[in-house]
Amino acid sequence: MNINIMLFDDFETLDAFGPVEILSRTTTHVIKYYSLAGGIVTSAQGMKIETEPICSANQKGVLVLPGGRGTRALVNDKKFLSCLKKIGDSATFCLSICTGSALFAKAGLLDGKAATSNKKAFAWAMSTSNKVSWIQKARWVVDGKFYTSSGVSAGMDMALGFIRDQYGLASAKQIALDIEYVWNEDKDEDIFSTFVG
Amino acid sequence: MNINIMLFDDFETLDAFGPVEILSRTTTHVIKYYSLAGGIVTSAQGMKIETEPICSANQKGVLVLPGGRGTRALVNDKKFLSCLKKIGDSATFCLSICTGSALFAKAGLLDGKAATSNKKAFAWAMSTSNKVSWIQKARWVVDGKFYTSSGVSAGMDMALGFIRDQYGLASAKQIALDIEYVWNEDKDEDIFSTFVG
Repeated sequence: MNINIMLFDDFETLDAFGPVEILSRTTTHVIKYYSLAGGIVTSAQGMKIETEPICSANQKGVLVLPGGRGTRALVNDKKFLSCLKKIGDSATFCLSICTGSALFAKAGLLDGKAATSNKKAFAWAMSTSNKVSWIQKARWVVDGKFYTSSGVSAGMDMALGFIRDQYGLASAKQIALDIEYVWNEDKDEDIFSTFVG
Repeated sequence: MNINIMLFDDFETLDAFGPVEILSRTTTHVIKYYSLAGGIVTSAQGMKIETEPICSANQKGVLVLPGGRGTRALVNDKKFLSCLKKIGDSATFCLSICTGSALFAKAGLLDGKAATSNKKAFAWAMSTSNKVSWIQKARWVVDGKFYTSSGVSAGMDMALGFIRDQYGLASAKQIALDIEYVWNEDKDEDIFSTFVG
């Protein structure tokens, strides 16, 4: 299965690379890194990473979209949102981390669906679409082919949840063990939900 | 404080970018990405990242060294180890994640010190130096200016521990909250230590 990591300037580093670490640990996954136009993308933590243009991707497979402060401009970027709608429609699964769900929402991909987002930016995420059923208390939310996680670190728990749903609990537990990760495996348990801002 | 992330081909992605996410969240840290010769470095997960040559770094500050399968060749690379010894000696603090400690050990930086490493590669890490007091049961180990963590995800817990030691518990807890991370804050608690290989 293709894992297409969709990056943009000022994405949050761990949003993307926590799930990358986990999703890479199945032998059937091929991970590639994309952005709207390709070229070097710089994370919010100053990391410069090479990407290919998303139009060159095999869009079947898993689309992974991080959040980060770069989303604040992108919710008003019609070209980006139009592209995101197209690749989201084509993808077999769509996973967002943190405020990545605000981009999915603004692109119209989450209309009529349940989703969550970063707790510290929850009010802002909600403001991007009133057609989404925003779930405040959730480590991550699954609705059809859409997986949306809470802030930053929650993306790792969601990625393991995605592995569990696709490959079984034993696979997810083996990956958690291999990376010595204490998995928060209940998507409805969310100790950060009381800090909503 | 300079945070110098030292990368090499086939480093483990989350080893580096978990701690990067955490260490970037103090206003006093400047994070830069280096490798021995500079240029593009490719992680074990196929991510291509731009680096500067380590000789151009201000070597005072925090040296962060990931592990990953690339370490298997580097423990026999005299040029790399000689450089690592030099920058490790100059650094104010040296942090390794996973099998990064095998490189510190082979370079002679950990002689007479206590350290830990990835649990699945623990026997191999121990084989790189008999002058290190290898601690099997530890999420991370602190000995003087050296912080060494267990496998992959343990680097995030150690990075928060480093923040606690330098800036206080409240700072570490605030960062964990901001990234919605369930911090395993006891460095001596290690549920993975029974899986040593």
